[in-house]
Amino acid sequence: MSGIKVSGQKRLVLVSGRAHPELAEKIAAELGSELVPTDARTFANGEIYARFDESVRGCDAFVIQSHPTPINEWLMEQLIMVDALKRASAKRITVVAPFYPYARQDKKGRGREPISARLVADLFKTAGADRIMSVDLHAAQIQGFFDGPVDHLFAMPVLLEYFQKRLDPQTLTVVSPDMGRVRVADNWSDKLGAPLAIIHKRRDPLVPNQVSVHEIVGDVKGRVCLLVDDLIDTGRTIVKAAEALKENGATGVVVASTHAVFSDPAPEILQSSSIDKVVVTDTLPLTPEQQFEKLEVLTIAPLLARAIREVFEDGSVTSLFDGAA
Amino acid sequence: MSGIKVSGQKRLVLVSGRAHPELAEKIAAELGSELVPTDARTFANGEIYARFDESVRGCDAFVIQSHPTPINEWLMEQLIMVDALKRASAKRITVVAPFYPYARQDKKGRGREPISARLVADLFKTAGADRIMSVDLHAAQIQGFFDGPVDHLFAMPVLLEYFQKRLDPQTLTVVSPDMGRVRVADNWSDKLGAPLAIIHKRRDPLVPNQVSVHEIVGDVKGRVCLLVDDLIDTGRTIVKAAEALKENGATGVVVASTHAVFSDPAPEILQSSSIDKVVVTDTLPLTPEQQFEKLEVLTIAPLLARAIREVFEDGSVTSLFDGAA
Amino acid sequence: MSGIKVSGQKRLVLVSGRAHPELAEKIAAELGSELVPTDARTFANGEIYARFDESVRGCDAFVIQSHPTPINEWLMEQLIMVDALKRASAKRITVVAPFYPYARQDKKGRGREPISARLVADLFKTAGADRIMSVDLHAAQIQGFFDGPVDHLFAMPVLLEYFQKRLDPQTLTVVSPDMGRVRVADNWSDKLGAPLAIIHKRRDPLVPNQVSVHEIVGDVKGRVCLLVDDLIDTGRTIVKAAEALKENGATGVVVASTHAVFSDPAPEILQSSSIDKVVVTDTLPLTPEQQFEKLEVLTIAPLLARAIREVFEDGSVTSLFDGAA
Amino acid sequence: MSGIKVSGQKRLVLVSGRAHPELAEKIAAELGSELVPTDARTFANGEIYARFDESVRGCDAFVIQSHPTPINEWLMEQLIMVDALKRASAKRITVVAPFYPYARQDKKGRGREPISARLVADLFKTAGADRIMSVDLHAAQIQGFFDGPVDHLFAMPVLLEYFQKRLDPQTLTVVSPDMGRVRVADNWSDKLGAPLAIIHKRRDPLVPNQVSVHEIVGDVKGRVCLLVDDLIDTGRTIVKAAEALKENGATGVVVASTHAVFSDPAPEILQSSSIDKVVVTDTLPLTPEQQFEKLEVLTIAPLLARAIREVFEDGSVTSLFDGAA
Amino acid sequence: MSGIKVSGQKRLVLVSGRAHPELAEKIAAELGSELVPTDARTFANGEIYARFDESVRGCDAFVIQSHPTPINEWLMEQLIMVDALKRASAKRITVVAPFYPYARQDKKGRGREPISARLVADLFKTAGADRIMSVDLHAAQIQGFFDGPVDHLFAMPVLLEYFQKRLDPQTLTVVSPDMGRVRVADNWSDKLGAPLAIIHKRRDPLVPNQVSVHEIVGDVKGRVCLLVDDLIDTGRTIVKAAEALKENGATGVVVASTHAVFSDPAPEILQSSSIDKVVVTDTLPLTPEQQFEKLEVLTIAPLLARAIREVFEDGSVTSLFDGAA
Amino acid sequence: MSGIKVSGQKRLVLVSGRAHPELAEKIAAELGSELVPTDARTFANGEIYARFDESVRGCDAFVIQSHPTPINEWLMEQLIMVDALKRASAKRITVVAPFYPYARQDKKGRGREPISARLVADLFKTAGADRIMSVDLHAAQIQGFFDGPVDHLFAMPVLLEYFQKRLDPQTLTVVSPDMGRVRVADNWSDKLGAPLAIIHKRRDPLVPNQVSVHEIVGDVKGRVCLLVDDLIDTGRTIVKAAEALKENGATGVVVASTHAVFSDPAPEILQSSSIDKVVVTDTLPLTPEQQFEKLEVLTIAPLLARAIREVFEDGSVTSLFDGAA
Repeated sequence: MSGIKVSGQKRLVLVSGRAHPELAEKIAAELGSELVPTDARTFANGEIYARFDESVRGCDAFVIQSHPTPINEWLMEQLIMVDALKRASAKRITVVAPFYPYARQDKKGRGREPISARLVADLFKTAGADRIMSVDLHAAQIQGFFDGPVDHLFAMPVLLEYFQKRLDPQTLTVVSPDMGRVRVADNWSDKLGAPLAIIHKRRDPLVPNQVSVHEIVGDVKGRVCLLVDDLIDTGRTIVKAAEALKENGATGVVVASTHAVFSDPAPEILQSSSIDKVVVTDTLPLTPEQQFEKLEVLTIAPLLARAIREVFEDGSVTSLFDGAA
Repeated sequence: MSGIKVSGQKRLVLVSGRAHPELAEKIAAELGSELVPTDARTFANGEIYARFDESVRGCDAFVIQSHPTPINEWLMEQLIMVDALKRASAKRITVVAPFYPYARQDKKGRGREPISARLVADLFKTAGADRIMSVDLHAAQIQGFFDGPVDHLFAMPVLLEYFQKRLDPQTLTVVSPDMGRVRVADNWSDKLGAPLAIIHKRRDPLVPNQVSVHEIVGDVKGRVCLLVDDLIDTGRTIVKAAEALKENGATGVVVASTHAVFSDPAPEILQSSSIDKVVVTDTLPLTPEQQFEKLEVLTIAPLLARAIREVFEDGSVTSLFDGAA
Repeated sequence: MSGIKVSGQKRLVLVSGRAHPELAEKIAAELGSELVPTDARTFANGEIYARFDESVRGCDAFVIQSHPTPINEWLMEQLIMVDALKRASAKRITVVAPFYPYARQDKKGRGREPISARLVADLFKTAGADRIMSVDLHAAQIQGFFDGPVDHLFAMPVLLEYFQKRLDPQTLTVVSPDMGRVRVADNWSDKLGAPLAIIHKRRDPLVPNQVSVHEIVGDVKGRVCLLVDDLIDTGRTIVKAAEALKENGATGVVVASTHAVFSDPAPEILQSSSIDKVVVTDTLPLTPEQQFEKLEVLTIAPLLARAIREVFEDGSVTSLFDGAA
Repeated sequence: MSGIKVSGQKRLVLVSGRAHPELAEKIAAELGSELVPTDARTFANGEIYARFDESVRGCDAFVIQSHPTPINEWLMEQLIMVDALKRASAKRITVVAPFYPYARQDKKGRGREPISARLVADLFKTAGADRIMSVDLHAAQIQGFFDGPVDHLFAMPVLLEYFQKRLDPQTLTVVSPDMGRVRVADNWSDKLGAPLAIIHKRRDPLVPNQVSVHEIVGDVKGRVCLLVDDLIDTGRTIVKAAEALKENGATGVVVASTHAVFSDPAPEILQSSSIDKVVVTDTLPLTPEQQFEKLEVLTIAPLLARAIREVFEDGSVTSLFDGAA
Repeated sequence: MSGIKVSGQKRLVLVSGRAHPELAEKIAAELGSELVPTDARTFANGEIYARFDESVRGCDAFVIQSHPTPINEWLMEQLIMVDALKRASAKRITVVAPFYPYARQDKKGRGREPISARLVADLFKTAGADRIMSVDLHAAQIQGFFDGPVDHLFAMPVLLEYFQKRLDPQTLTVVSPDMGRVRVADNWSDKLGAPLAIIHKRRDPLVPNQVSVHEIVGDVKGRVCLLVDDLIDTGRTIVKAAEALKENGATGVVVASTHAVFSDPAPEILQSSSIDKVVVTDTLPLTPEQQFEKLEVLTIAPLLARAIREVFEDGSVTSLFDGAA
Repeated sequence: MSGIKVSGQKRLVLVSGRAHPELAEKIAAELGSELVPTDARTFANGEIYARFDESVRGCDAFVIQSHPTPINEWLMEQLIMVDALKRASAKRITVVAPFYPYARQDKKGRGREPISARLVADLFKTAGADRIMSVDLHAAQIQGFFDGPVDHLFAMPVLLEYFQKRLDPQTLTVVSPDMGRVRVADNWSDKLGAPLAIIHKRRDPLVPNQVSVHEIVGDVKGRVCLLVDDLIDTGRTIVKAAEALKENGATGVVVASTHAVFSDPAPEILQSSSIDKVVVTDTLPLTPEQQFEKLEVLTIAPLLARAIREVFEDGSVTSLFDGAA
């Protein structure tokens, strides 16, 4: 039969955007590899340019980018990199977006609104992405926005290990800061063997037009409270929750959250609050201004590295996905 | 300039599957129109056939189908009808699925699961649907599964009107049967001016491996409780919730739910429970076996008819979408 | 150069729907493999759920499903399985549908009809299928409905071997039961070295409005007749053909058909007819009620297993496709 | 409400390729309109260029092109015209291909063959066609190759009218030249009230390896035979059929066929054969060399004009589609 | 026939991003209309949100956005608005991008580069855009990047009118600042009846490795030179060209350019240069810091308004497209 | 874990159209391989048929076709071959089109023109092409017309080597025949270390309506001029350029061009011109009538063979792409 035959081989390459190079480098180090040398720049008029300095032909490429503010810049940079990989004959392209951009715009609350989380999935697809990898999606349904595989990882094991070493389940209560996060908190409560409490923001039904009150369901008096949430943006919700817990007799309040968005005034109010410790992961980079004494940052890099390796080697990664709510 | 010019005109046509012809006929009657005469049949080997007896060329077609069991039959019939409309040059095709099929399979809870609610959206698109109209989606994110407009209607006004006439807000409490429905219940509580309670199913954190308990948050003693949910399937959740309410001193329990799936043994256990009244809409047809004395069925037809008319006439239908959670 | 390199390897997996597990197991046995353990269920409200219990990442997956009645259930189950494979990062997905669903709805006979056989091809594509494998398509043009490779296998060699051992070409005549199957019968006639006859249903041109008569073209008197067709549905056509052959002096009638649809009343009328033997393959499962004394079922599993192996190993399978009409 | 409103109006435009301008002009005349003035040229290196001299913005455009040899030139010209219409903002584009190109390559007869009839449907779609209009498709399944509406017209009424005026059903027999055309001939037989005969080409089963013989089924002795076929290419099949009919005692042979492909040596052998008359339509242009004394050409323009008008005005055109086989 | 008929009507709506509201308002005023009231915001974490306060159902929507720095923000805002329009059932969506973003990244100059101008076209398509309208594309081939109509307008008539009133063709020379713009300059030279000169940057072939020199082709001594270009970014090219002209005896230098990108240090060096006048259009907004004494800004709004009206009314807009190079 | 595992292997196959088999054979020879035996034919009615005589399942297929006149035939043949490969399960399909068809129709110069170069890219994609390989695209932007990788090779090294051996840079001047090719000529001038001149066709600005003159920029007196262009079609431009050079004192004129389109009357006027030598490559076949004494044809086969090998082996081919303008 005519033709030329050679043995197949596959090559994994890691590409990084400029939003959070430290995370990408840690992932590469975990994998015993290096990032593809890349020339990425922003021109004076705001246009982004990217080019890889090594061949990526036939590769299994992972494009790692975080999405802090300015979020649209980093999204666009990632799209441009995916386009460049596609045109450079990469075999498979996985977008690694530890904090999925626009995750909270996942439905039309009112008429004539966009569904930007779906739009983002479509933009990745259009640019050339075959797969998406992300951590702790704000709503698990976002997996269904992408027409292809989505590796949905969970940061809970990383955060959990930290607290298991430091907190005594006998005096601990896991607290959900609002109704939407109860299932996550329930999961923590199971894993830590600690009771659960919920903070319920609502109108007082007996007093018309009164603003919402923070009602606490469950026993927090004399206990150390662990507030868990997927992200902290301005920090206001979590600080108010902590105040309510203290008012109800909590002896300590610690916070665990995957995504440290930390928009203004989060760093300031978190530090000056009655919270004892805020533990987050490095899915997003933090500027010096966003850091504060009470903050502890755990790295998500080993989790991402393991998932990337399993995806590349076609192993089972279901074990990494524990913690689904 | 060459060519032939004529004034534009548009024509609305209503097409119905065989799952729930009564609903389609009510919608047509509300619109002062009639259903397109259709030859729809199932052959001996299980294949479905459909053909329209009138031209639908250039029409704005609405394909009304409900999705009770056998749900796959009715879904396939609707897909076949959409295909026939597309090939018959309908101008625009709107799938009307009052109860969205596979709505509860909206995410991967574990590895290697399908996301069937997204698959259904893609199947409608592939067959030729331009738009989808549905009532009370199990998760609002399902709107983002379809690449096009989704008219998401709310049955609450229909159900609300029924209760406003019959219940006294002074003695009423709105109850959410589980954590996932709190926002809907909160909305009802606002509209009715009645307080809110929540039923929380969870493990007892102090006793390992114990089964879940039904904890009630809020005051229900001596009050009439209105349990609200989007759908009732086997009825077990709602019956257990009613029992818990009664045990906690509720003087009466009534239930409001949009979609009466009523799988076995729902009719029996609902009737024999301590519930006083179950009020649903006709988004799904009910067989004689699925009906029972305590059941009250309100029609959703006027709501759908108004939405269809607005869509056809390009009016604003945002007012119909109140009740979003 | 940066990156990680490993040798390529490919893995074949077999997945089966619930319509005809015996066939799938036979195929697996032929290949010396096993089916992927799968949790497939139908919920009380009719929705189907499927999940694979082993990783399928990077696999070359074959989804085996038969399509007897209830055909839409089995079609939907297969689509859901394909969706789950796609989202679980299977590398290539081949739909194995031994009896292609809706194959007879392959054109618009009249205005406003669907072309459901094309719709089915599009649904497979949308769910995520890369390829289709099927046996004896009702019309070979169905290959063109799918935008990708279609492996069109032929059952004739399997059936032929049976008859070559048992019938004497000297006294045998191959008969086509209607005009649409003449080319298939012609092929059999060549292979068996036996003469050909045709049954022609038509109006008597000399008597207006008279119903069709069964006219026999060719010599059948004193001969054993082998009626060949691609499928037997209600059995009426084949039974009437047998009667006509007997009336014209045939000494025996045997029937060969690939797909045993066997809708009511096929089993009964075939058994009570003057036919001596009905030989089919197991592309479709048969319930106990669908079986009868005169029936002989040959297995198609070795043919499908060989085709699957060749597809997986990129060998030539053209030799398996003999018998094209 | 903001915005500007105007009454809708729609405009039909007719565009023609250069393969068969006479047909396009006849269609325009039937519609009381004119063709859009178009600059279409072939450059010295073989590239085709086309530009419309009038605005086609928002139009309902019909691109009329015939596909005689050099068929690829005319196909490419039509694709280029569709592209130009799409980019010029035509609202809807219908490809009018009276003789569908590559219709006979509608399946894979053997491995590694193309399915060019499907490819052509996809090329039209890609260029921008929304709909296809064609006459007497070689296989009705080709309708399913296009993902959109296909208006499949039938030339039989045009040809039928000619023969009804000239032939006496008492002495007439309708003959199908091969097995694949029986259903068409059956339809003619019904409409003319004349009996049917079939010519069956096959190997003599008693003599191995013998070439095919032309066996005549039905009574032709002393009768005028009307041979019907969808197309005449080299003419060899039809001439041999006529010879067989004469040898079997036919007193006259006339031929009706929709598409006059007339490849070499059709004109010569048809003229010199024992055929009395060959009646075709003008779906394809005829060069002077392709014309001969026994030939009669009927125009298909009124049929196409009526179909175009109905499509434009969203009327029912099902009545035009009589004659489906 | 069943169904409801109403007369067609169409409604144009104008939607504006936040990059350059003055331009959008001028366009609306030209059309005698108003912008759709829109709630567009950037959240603290950088995510953009947009919602229209009026129904856009069935509308012919034009989404006007300019793309100055931060260009990715404005691009993303426009994509989100298009998505919202699509989901709100707008009938047709035209992206109006007077200065096409990433127009200069229109090819791979080297391996592993993106083609961002194509990516942008695909992003618009994916979000839901049916058409694009732009002014003076950097390369006309960008029209071919979008799979649909592109209205490519030319600003030359606007700029030309300004100079025709103020400059004497007898003493004027049109100058192209580099090789890529010669065809545009040639067009100006024709329209103004003035001679042409070209500035040619190149290496001195006789001295290896020497930096580029600005060679002037054509006669500029004692003449007023009009430098024409499609855009001015940092201004360095145009200032160096002006210096070279002065050194070669030009008595005056004026500049005409469509897009005033004016990245740093353009305003400063243009003002302090020997250029007498810089005339641009308002395709991009100018901050106070970007304005300077020698600058004259002409509005492009009437041109865009006329094109929008013609597109909406399906008129011919070819006359607006004069000036193509 | 279930399933069957085998080591991966990949196979390259070369397929050739009938336009220029010599080139394909040379490429195969360079690669030490052979072309897949193929049955490609044109039927009497102009339809093309193609079938491969060997399995191509799982292959990395390269479809080599040149596009001389009749260009549409060869384009259609290549599309049909791609379709056949797709349906035969080729793993990856690369279209090798050394001279990209319709490359000069790359933009809308006026309203209602097609963009045929984009259409061609879309046709390749639709047929099933994953990648395109071409030499010296007329405009580099054509890379952006294809949604996938385009390997854009440059013939300059091949041509350059020829001239470096034969011409003395001391007496040589590189000349661009028009403005659009200046950048290519500049590149040659760099590589050869020879000065540059430009021929500028334009209207005399002082004499209204006068036809264009050929103005020479740069010093050509007493020098050997090397005219460089991407293609020679009718030859008129290049012959006029040569005349102008001679009139201005050039002592010799040689021509280098990649694509020898050589439409009538190119061979004749080139031979009879004052040009000394015309050097082209064999991207296009030349008939005996297209050849002439002054012509020298260099083969592009080694360049294409190296690029194909690198693509197959996932090596870097950036080094082959030198010469980008």
